[in-house]
Amino acid sequence: MANNSFDFGMIGLGTMGRNLLLNIADNGFSAIGFDRDATKGQLLESSATKGTTVKSASSLAEMIQLLKAPRKVMMLVPAGPIVDSVINDLIPLLQPGDIIIDGGNSHYIDTLKRIDFLKDKKIHFMGMGVSGGEKGARFGPSIMPGGDIEAWKAVKQILEAVSAKVNSEPCVAYMGKAAAGHYVKMVHNGIEYAIMQLISEVYDVMKRGLNMSNDEMHAVFAKWNQGAMQSYLIEITADIFLKQDDLTENNRLVDMILDKAGSKGTGKWTSQDAMDLPVSVPTIDIAVALRDLSSYKDERVAAAALFQPVIKPMKNEEKVIQQLHDGLYAATIICYAQGLSMLAKASTELKMDIPLKDVVRIWRGGCIIRSALLEIFTKAYKKDKTLSNILLNKKVVSLVKKSNASLRKVIQLAVASKIPVTGLSSAIGYLDAYTSAQMPVNLIQAQRDLFGAHTYQRIDKEGIFHTEW
Amino acid sequence: MANNSFDFGMIGLGTMGRNLLLNIADNGFSAIGFDRDATKGQLLESSATKGTTVKSASSLAEMIQLLKAPRKVMMLVPAGPIVDSVINDLIPLLQPGDIIIDGGNSHYIDTLKRIDFLKDKKIHFMGMGVSGGEKGARFGPSIMPGGDIEAWKAVKQILEAVSAKVNSEPCVAYMGKAAAGHYVKMVHNGIEYAIMQLISEVYDVMKRGLNMSNDEMHAVFAKWNQGAMQSYLIEITADIFLKQDDLTENNRLVDMILDKAGSKGTGKWTSQDAMDLPVSVPTIDIAVALRDLSSYKDERVAAAALFQPVIKPMKNEEKVIQQLHDGLYAATIICYAQGLSMLAKASTELKMDIPLKDVVRIWRGGCIIRSALLEIFTKAYKKDKTLSNILLNKKVVSLVKKSNASLRKVIQLAVASKIPVTGLSSAIGYLDAYTSAQMPVNLIQAQRDLFGAHTYQRIDKEGIFHTEW
Repeated sequence: MANNSFDFGMIGLGTMGRNLLLNIADNGFSAIGFDRDATKGQLLESSATKGTTVKSASSLAEMIQLLKAPRKVMMLVPAGPIVDSVINDLIPLLQPGDIIIDGGNSHYIDTLKRIDFLKDKKIHFMGMGVSGGEKGARFGPSIMPGGDIEAWKAVKQILEAVSAKVNSEPCVAYMGKAAAGHYVKMVHNGIEYAIMQLISEVYDVMKRGLNMSNDEMHAVFAKWNQGAMQSYLIEITADIFLKQDDLTENNRLVDMILDKAGSKGTGKWTSQDAMDLPVSVPTIDIAVALRDLSSYKDERVAAAALFQPVIKPMKNEEKVIQQLHDGLYAATIICYAQGLSMLAKASTELKMDIPLKDVVRIWRGGCIIRSALLEIFTKAYKKDKTLSNILLNKKVVSLVKKSNASLRKVIQLAVASKIPVTGLSSAIGYLDAYTSAQMPVNLIQAQRDLFGAHTYQRIDKEGIFHTEW
Repeated sequence: MANNSFDFGMIGLGTMGRNLLLNIADNGFSAIGFDRDATKGQLLESSATKGTTVKSASSLAEMIQLLKAPRKVMMLVPAGPIVDSVINDLIPLLQPGDIIIDGGNSHYIDTLKRIDFLKDKKIHFMGMGVSGGEKGARFGPSIMPGGDIEAWKAVKQILEAVSAKVNSEPCVAYMGKAAAGHYVKMVHNGIEYAIMQLISEVYDVMKRGLNMSNDEMHAVFAKWNQGAMQSYLIEITADIFLKQDDLTENNRLVDMILDKAGSKGTGKWTSQDAMDLPVSVPTIDIAVALRDLSSYKDERVAAAALFQPVIKPMKNEEKVIQQLHDGLYAATIICYAQGLSMLAKASTELKMDIPLKDVVRIWRGGCIIRSALLEIFTKAYKKDKTLSNILLNKKVVSLVKKSNASLRKVIQLAVASKIPVTGLSSAIGYLDAYTSAQMPVNLIQAQRDLFGAHTYQRIDKEGIFHTEW
């Protein structure tokens, strides 16, 4: 191909970058990529679909030279200083009007700094979330671009082509001003953490409480995935129970995996930033706290030896499984409610104008938290796009009213059985506090005023009061 | 008095600063203070005990001039930029070897920056936590100094004199290097948030579940304060129920206070910083999240109207009250366990060498979280000063073993009754996860590896693994 002929450039050809670029090429755009590791460039070219235009550049400069103006350059590199380093490498190569897209999981504060830094140089910068993992990137992710509206217009056609589709609608939309793209993706991941925590607790109840086998758990999750609970995370959970271990005989892989959770930080950021707003996302907080606790494996083994907790077996398996289904359904709705309420609050507090109706619409396909519930939420926000909490939508109210009794039953059973259900408990606690016109927080305010003269408000008069107790 | 004759200077003569300075003077030291608001200086002098040496300076320069070298200057001003502003005002007035003490609730990261900044100028800087509220400051607080050891030596005699005493031992000790003083105080406040959340939930169960009157609740809390549960927070809770409202007829003040919690940020910092370490403090996280949720009063009223939750009344009041006692006891131990495990982790991770045995010893008196439990913890750390979690101490194990069944009962009752007990639930969840040699986190790691190639560890082999699922 001649100079200035490529439609789209990618920096960082790890699995995500390579797959997204191949996806772009499959959709008829000419795609060029660069990675310092030349073997990754070779893998890109050798993985290309026949008849598509995919090239690995030998240098960043070559890649930029081969792009059509205005150049559309995307990065999929690890969040942090590497992003700044790539931007600094790009600046002398780019021209005013060119577009840089950061598609990694950058913290939104970093994105805001980069927008400011590049504005002076007249280079468009867009923070963009991409969810869907390896397969999503290859065959259709959910894409969350935000910030510079000119950049969005310039890449809209390409992103719509490569994104997942639900009812022929692309799972990509403009997520709002400033760092909205990365902010929405961060909260997406926070919700993901919370739902994964809930599923792990249901698994614990099934395994330790009901003594179910992997095959039995597979069957239950596979069945759940056919109904109201249909979702990507339920689907892959069903699959996981069947996977054989390759390194030992007659074991399932899930049983050979160590119970120490890793994390890349986006769940933690969601919790920390929620506290700054402030908005309440207790189930996300718990998911972060429990992952952190899991890493203290040696202490847990020592504590187990000291306490010797005896897990009380549960009876009436079929009934408990039904309660687990309904309870997980209610708790999952409450996770989304927490995350979406955070986006509603952040949208105004951080002046991002996030279109929540588009957020839930593009989460319906491609991303890790896609689920049948998002169709219901999409309808809710279509009806009222300023909905501050999904629990205020009548359809959602009816769903939670029907299912919350089962969530209560599951928690009662598990708490009696000594199986930790901290995430599920935080969900019912959130529901019960959120639906309490009167919380017992008047006592906390009384205590604070008594010992620290921190003042309080009254129920019958405006103003700030202090009492000499 | 002549020039250079005062022992101790205070900047900021709000209630805390004034009271601490009066306390210092009562203990035989000559005390001088300065506040931009001259009326506060007048109040200082008029409040002084007869025969003590207390002076209000008309300017910062005058105060510094009247202090003995090395000058000991303490600030009790709002955390944040005001602290830096006072430091900048002080620098030209001080000489090498002089000592600045920040006694406010500064974030430890700010304290680290200030230590660095002042080191070049050869001025000692000490971050110091002071807990006990107004009365504590006046008659004996718990004091948590850290950082510069020379500064500690220079003020040790004064601080030991003014601090609270338990068995004649002063409730002040060196808390470790760097910003250890403010760090320990921050975690103290995090524990305080968590215990206040638990007490508020017990109050909610008593009020809405058992329909108890303020007088009945007063009687129960007053009785609890005579036994194993003896603590400052239980004591003031008992008192609060009796306080009449001055602005209306025949009402208790607690019932007239609006259920929106305020906060000064130290609880939030504890949660956020715990996530960075990382260490798991779910009950502190929940306390922050529920205070935040309380501020959404309008939404809660709307949600209550939509859901119309009916609180199920509880039977067998006497038995439930006993379960609340034992359950709150277990959950309170677990709050301390979370906070102290955070200090243990931070001590090494942030190179502070925090002496945990001294932390629990000086928390026995003066501070907001003083309680009979701290005597038990002091014995535990005397036995093993490297204890990473108080739940690994045999005495504590036996106490939690005896009381956790009641905590389970309370949660089961409240969850059935639709009374939010998110804090209590997080405590039992922490206990059950911490005493689980095997957590269900292997499933989370499987999910992460399946959708994001995030890798996992195995139970049977060293190394990092990834599977093509």
